[in-house]
Amino acid sequence: MTVADLTERELVARIQRRLPPAPAWLLVGIGDDAAVVEPERNRVEVLTVDALVEGVHFDRTFVPPPAIGHRALAVNLSDLAAMGAAPRLALLSMALPAGLPVDDFDGIADGVAALAAGHRLHVAGGNLTHSPGPLVIDMTLTGTVKRRQALTRAGARPGDDVYVSGTLGAAAAGLAQLQEVVGRKSPVIGSQSSVVSPESSVGGPARRATCDLRLTTAYLRPEPRVRLGIMLARNRAASACIDLSDGLADGAHRLAEASGVGIVIDGSALPIDPSARAWFEAGGTDPVRAALTGGDDYELLFTVRPRTGRRLKEVERQGGVAIARIGRCTDGGGVVLQCGNDTAPMPEGYSHFARLNHLHPGSGESRSDA
Amino acid sequence: MTVADLTERELVARIQRRLPPAPAWLLVGIGDDAAVVEPERNRVEVLTVDALVEGVHFDRTFVPPPAIGHRALAVNLSDLAAMGAAPRLALLSMALPAGLPVDDFDGIADGVAALAAGHRLHVAGGNLTHSPGPLVIDMTLTGTVKRRQALTRAGARPGDDVYVSGTLGAAAAGLAQLQEVVGRKSPVIGSQSSVVSPESSVGGPARRATCDLRLTTAYLRPEPRVRLGIMLARNRAASACIDLSDGLADGAHRLAEASGVGIVIDGSALPIDPSARAWFEAGGTDPVRAALTGGDDYELLFTVRPRTGRRLKEVERQGGVAIARIGRCTDGGGVVLQCGNDTAPMPEGYSHFARLNHLHPGSGESRSDA
Repeated sequence: MTVADLTERELVARIQRRLPPAPAWLLVGIGDDAAVVEPERNRVEVLTVDALVEGVHFDRTFVPPPAIGHRALAVNLSDLAAMGAAPRLALLSMALPAGLPVDDFDGIADGVAALAAGHRLHVAGGNLTHSPGPLVIDMTLTGTVKRRQALTRAGARPGDDVYVSGTLGAAAAGLAQLQEVVGRKSPVIGSQSSVVSPESSVGGPARRATCDLRLTTAYLRPEPRVRLGIMLARNRAASACIDLSDGLADGAHRLAEASGVGIVIDGSALPIDPSARAWFEAGGTDPVRAALTGGDDYELLFTVRPRTGRRLKEVERQGGVAIARIGRCTDGGGVVLQCGNDTAPMPEGYSHFARLNHLHPGSGESRSDA
Repeated sequence: MTVADLTERELVARIQRRLPPAPAWLLVGIGDDAAVVEPERNRVEVLTVDALVEGVHFDRTFVPPPAIGHRALAVNLSDLAAMGAAPRLALLSMALPAGLPVDDFDGIADGVAALAAGHRLHVAGGNLTHSPGPLVIDMTLTGTVKRRQALTRAGARPGDDVYVSGTLGAAAAGLAQLQEVVGRKSPVIGSQSSVVSPESSVGGPARRATCDLRLTTAYLRPEPRVRLGIMLARNRAASACIDLSDGLADGAHRLAEASGVGIVIDGSALPIDPSARAWFEAGGTDPVRAALTGGDDYELLFTVRPRTGRRLKEVERQGGVAIARIGRCTDGGGVVLQCGNDTAPMPEGYSHFARLNHLHPGSGESRSDA
C-alpha cells in the first residue's frame, strides 16, 4: 500500500494518532485552515524553517524512515538551540512521491513524533501534497526565549573565547560509511549530507564497507543541543552562537562575519571524535580538515566573554553535553586555523548552491572548499 | 545564468533587496539561525503552511515566475483570511532545480514581494536548497487576531445562512484555457490546479485555444480575501468560515462536518462568473458542477446567524468584495445541492492523494468527484 491509495485526510489522521493531546495554548490545531496559538507571556518568538530533500539531504536507500523524520525535525531544533529558544510548535509540510509506501510514511511520522515528544514540541499543523519527484520534508518550528536572552551570531567581541559542544566528525564519518555500504562513492569532504547521485558514482568504494554503529547513529539520529542552547541563553553565558549544520569552518566564518571579529581556531583543541579520527586517518583523509568541513554535526559554536568562563562549568552540566574551548575572537584578521606554529586561512566550508557545480562539473568551478 | 551559478547567500541577497525595511517587531531577521519576533499584544497567533509543487500545482510552461510567487503566497494568505487573521510574517522555503534561470528566481521573488507588500506582510526568513526534481515553494505564514474573534470551520448552527465571496469558476476556466494554449489536455473538472503531465496528454485540445485575460488572471493572480476575513472577524459577522482552495463542494463538506450541520446549497444562487459560465457551456460542461468542483477560487465560504444579516452590508463594503447568499445550514442531512425542485448530494470535491489515482490509472479507483 502506498500513499496514493489514501486520501490526504487519512494520511493526516495517521500523523495525528502519533501525537500526544494538544496543549492548552493550542486553541485550534490540525483540521482547520490554520492553527491558532496563545502566545507565551513575556517571551519573544523564534521562528525557523528548514527542508530535507531526497537525493540532496538524504538517501532513502540507507536512511530508514524514522531517521528521515528525526533528521527533518533535528535540523530545525538545532536552529532554535542556536538562538537559545525553548521549542514550542512545529508545522510539518511534506511532498510525497506516489510510490511512497504507507509504512515508510508512518515511519517518518514516528521519527518526528518521537523527537518532538522528547523536546515537548507539539506538531500543530501542516500540509501534505503530492511530489512528482523527490520526497520533500519542510518543517517550520517556533520557540520562545526571553527578549534579552536571545542568542544571535552577532554579539562576539575581540577577546571572547570560542567554544564548541560535543564532538566533531562523527556524523560525516558515519555518512561516508553508510554510502560505502550501499555502494555510493564517499562524498567530497565538506559537502553537507551529500548524496552522490548514481550517475556520478564513477568509482566503487575505496575501502571495505563496514559501519561503526556509533558513527552512523551520529549521522542518522543527531541530537540537537536544545538544552545547552537554553542554558547558554538563560545564564547569559554566550555572547554569540550558531549551529554547525554546515560544518565548523562555515559556522566560524558566519559568526565572525556577523559579529565583525576575526577568529583563531586551535586545530589541536578540536574535539574530534576518536573513532571518526581513526576512520579518516585510515582512509588517508586529514581528520582536522574533515572535522572542520564535514557537516551534520548539529553542535553549537559559541563565544564567551573571558570573565564569563567561570559560569560555564554549571552551564555545561545543565546542558548535558561536554563543551571545549577551541579558539579566540580577534580584532579582525579573518578566520584562521592554527596548527602548532603554522596558521592558515580557514577553509570556506560548504555552500548548497556551489555544490551543484560538483554534481554538474561542466557548469562551472566549484566554490566550496576554496 | 542559473541558480547553480550562485551561492545560497547570493540568492538570499536577491530576495532581501526586494523587501522593504524590517518592521520594528522583527528583532532578528534574515541572516541568523532563526527569526526573532515580538508577539503582538492582546492577540492570538495564527499559523499556516502550504506548498506549491511544480507539476502538481503549477506548470512553468504557462505560469510566469511572478505568478508562481504570487500564487505561493496567495494560497497561504487565503488560509489566514479564512481565520479572520491579519497577516504578519512569512517564511519562504524553496527547493530549486539547478537549471532554474536566475531571472525566473528573481521573478518568483518579485511575485512574493509585491503581494506581501500589498498585505503588509514581512518575509522574515526562510531556506533555500537544491531540488533534483521539481521546483517546490513552501511558505509559512503567521497572522494575528483577537482571541474571541478567530474564525473556525466549527461554529455553524442549523438555520445559519451560507455565503460565498466573489465569483466562482473563473480560475478553473482560466487554467483550462492556459492548458489548451500550450497543448495540455484540459484537466478533469474538480482537480485543483491539475497539471496534466505530458505522458498523460493523450488527446489534443478539443477546442480552439484562446484565452480570456480576465479568466487567466483569476487563475494566475488570485486575490485572497484577507480584508473580508478580517472584517468578518472584527464584526463577529461569521459563525464559521473556510477558504475555497479545493472548491466550493469540498469547502461545504468540510465546514458542515466540522460544525456538525447539514448544508443546502441553492445551485441557482451561485455567483458563477459570466465569462466562465459561457466558456464552460460552450465546451459542453455543466457550469454549476464546474463552479462547485473547480478549485483555485480562493474565495471565502462562511455562515452567518440569521439576525446578523443586517450587519453584512457594511462588512461587504469594508471587505471590498461582493458576497452572495447561496444556501442554509440544516439540522443534519448532509450537504445537498438544490436545483429548482431537484436535490442531489453535493459532489465530494477534490482530494490531493486520490488524484494520484487519476494520473496512475492502474493503481486504484478515483475517489474524487464521487
